Amino acid sequence: MFYIGIDIGGMSIKGGVVTEEGKFIVKDFITTEPRADEEVIIKDIADLIKRLIAKAGLTEQSIEGIGLGIPGTVFGDEGRVRYAPNINLVNTPLVAKLSKYFKFNIPIRISNDANCAALGEALFGGGKGKTDVLMCTLGTGVGVGIMINGKLFEGIDSAGAEGGHMVIRTGGEKCGCGRKGCWEAYASATALIRQTNAAIKKFPDSLLAEIARKEGTVNGKTAFTAAEQGCGAAKSVIRKYLVYVGDGMVNLVNIFRPQVFIVGGGISKEGDNIIKPLQKYVNKFGYAPKYSPKVKVVPATLFNDAGILGAAALLMN
Amino acid sequence: MFYIGIDIGGMSIKGGVVTEEGKFIVKDFITTEPRADEEVIIKDIADLIKRLIAKAGLTEQSIEGIGLGIPGTVFGDEGRVRYAPNINLVNTPLVAKLSKYFKFNIPIRISNDANCAALGEALFGGGKGKTDVLMCTLGTGVGVGIMINGKLFEGIDSAGAEGGHMVIRTGGEKCGCGRKGCWEAYASATALIRQTNAAIKKFPDSLLAEIARKEGTVNGKTAFTAAEQGCGAAKSVIRKYLVYVGDGMVNLVNIFRPQVFIVGGGISKEGDNIIKPLQKYVNKFGYAPKYSPKVKVVPATLFNDAGILGAAALLMN
Repeated sequence: MFYIGIDIGGMSIKGGVVTEEGKFIVKDFITTEPRADEEVIIKDIADLIKRLIAKAGLTEQSIEGIGLGIPGTVFGDEGRVRYAPNINLVNTPLVAKLSKYFKFNIPIRISNDANCAALGEALFGGGKGKTDVLMCTLGTGVGVGIMINGKLFEGIDSAGAEGGHMVIRTGGEKCGCGRKGCWEAYASATALIRQTNAAIKKFPDSLLAEIARKEGTVNGKTAFTAAEQGCGAAKSVIRKYLVYVGDGMVNLVNIFRPQVFIVGGGISKEGDNIIKPLQKYVNKFGYAPKYSPKVKVVPATLFNDAGILGAAALLMN
Repeated sequence: MFYIGIDIGGMSIKGGVVTEEGKFIVKDFITTEPRADEEVIIKDIADLIKRLIAKAGLTEQSIEGIGLGIPGTVFGDEGRVRYAPNINLVNTPLVAKLSKYFKFNIPIRISNDANCAALGEALFGGGKGKTDVLMCTLGTGVGVGIMINGKLFEGIDSAGAEGGHMVIRTGGEKCGCGRKGCWEAYASATALIRQTNAAIKKFPDSLLAEIARKEGTVNGKTAFTAAEQGCGAAKSVIRKYLVYVGDGMVNLVNIFRPQVFIVGGGISKEGDNIIKPLQKYVNKFGYAPKYSPKVKVVPATLFNDAGILGAAALLMN
């Protein structure tokens, strides 16, 4: 059985024909025209889908379903995009409009792109073979994806799974969402960079500060690089950062008690440097460790492909 | 159709025959012998069930199912009690052992008692008619119950829904679970009493302190009583306490985006004094308030009956 996954981004729209096992038959993409009329955007997507089907040597009839990941909020049940900040889709009945381009009645579903990526990782990446999987993406912000009993969980009107906006420090750092102390404000790559800069200011003679000056910039890797070379200030930054990440993860573990917790996003490329201490933290601080089933912490493995695979998987079951 | 719900407590075991609409046909109870042999406890429960059936003028054949709420942790799928601190059921295959007392093959299910109470409130109390409902119980601790799509959510091996042990202040007050800064350590009645005592110590001349001296004790009502009489110190205690309660509620709203959030436990008897400000807090700080469906905050209505009704409801659906 063949499915089509489409991952809509502000720069490009990527798609693929995939099997139920998460294997790609073909992949393709188009560049996005984010400010074009929505009819143009939808026609472009339809053309991409038709091209994918042709490249795979298939016909519309042999496609079980089309899933689309939207960089914004959606009403999943209605197939309507609510709002997408980086592409001109506002209150767009995307499923209805896209359906008109296909002769056969192919089922189409949409979801948020981060949710799709989490579903892809959960089904075909770090969570393969498991039914209950969480994922956090430590990037510019902190995204959370939730798979319960093999299905993506999104909350009423797809407005849940905003675990990045869970306060872990009441009254703490201001978050873009209007609250203070959100997980995102402490555990995102953006937050790590802020924490790194603060340490550089406090310890101008540290190796960390020296590396930052040499590189002329501070990013999510700077503190890890300095820590590897033995810098105490950098080690302290990372130790505290991992407590922030760990506290949010344990919160979600206590609420969902999944089998696997996938850590994705740019920071996850640090591999064992973060996965091992986070696994320890979850083991130690998860509720009732003696009586509760273990939760395995793993890094994301699919990265860019996760969005396409997860979108396709919206139609699988 | 008739169902039996049993609510096992350290002091008494209560039960009822109820209809699918959550109406009681009969209710009854026995006193608990918490340190008795598990076989004795199980026989007592079986006798209570048989008496309930007889009192309702029914036969075993007309019972669709029996649900039991356990004051501890369970393996729901296996029908086994993992551990219950206040009654002698440890690693007990309760469903298998209880089944032997009945001639007909009546389906039996078990769950944690707080989860049962939340399911009862969600289906027949404050959440009636809705499919996605959260409940927090502000008592000695903070309990959280989760109903998704009309069904109780418990996590793998029923080890989830421990939302009281979600850190809202990383590095904060020590919690009984071993973490620091849990919601329970800030939003339980126990925490409110601690916060009230701290204010009395800080403001020994306040009306709050005077009331506490007059009553000879401090409880979860003390600050509310003083605040109603205009005491500034008491008002400040309550304002801060409601931020703690609200922060945990908004965390769960952002993750689950339910239709209704029920507030239960002793503190919820303050009614509008807490429900109104919490509704405002959820409206204001829930993620993307302009684009997200509203979440209604309501007080629990069933109190002691919720546990029996929710246990019975484990078998409905």
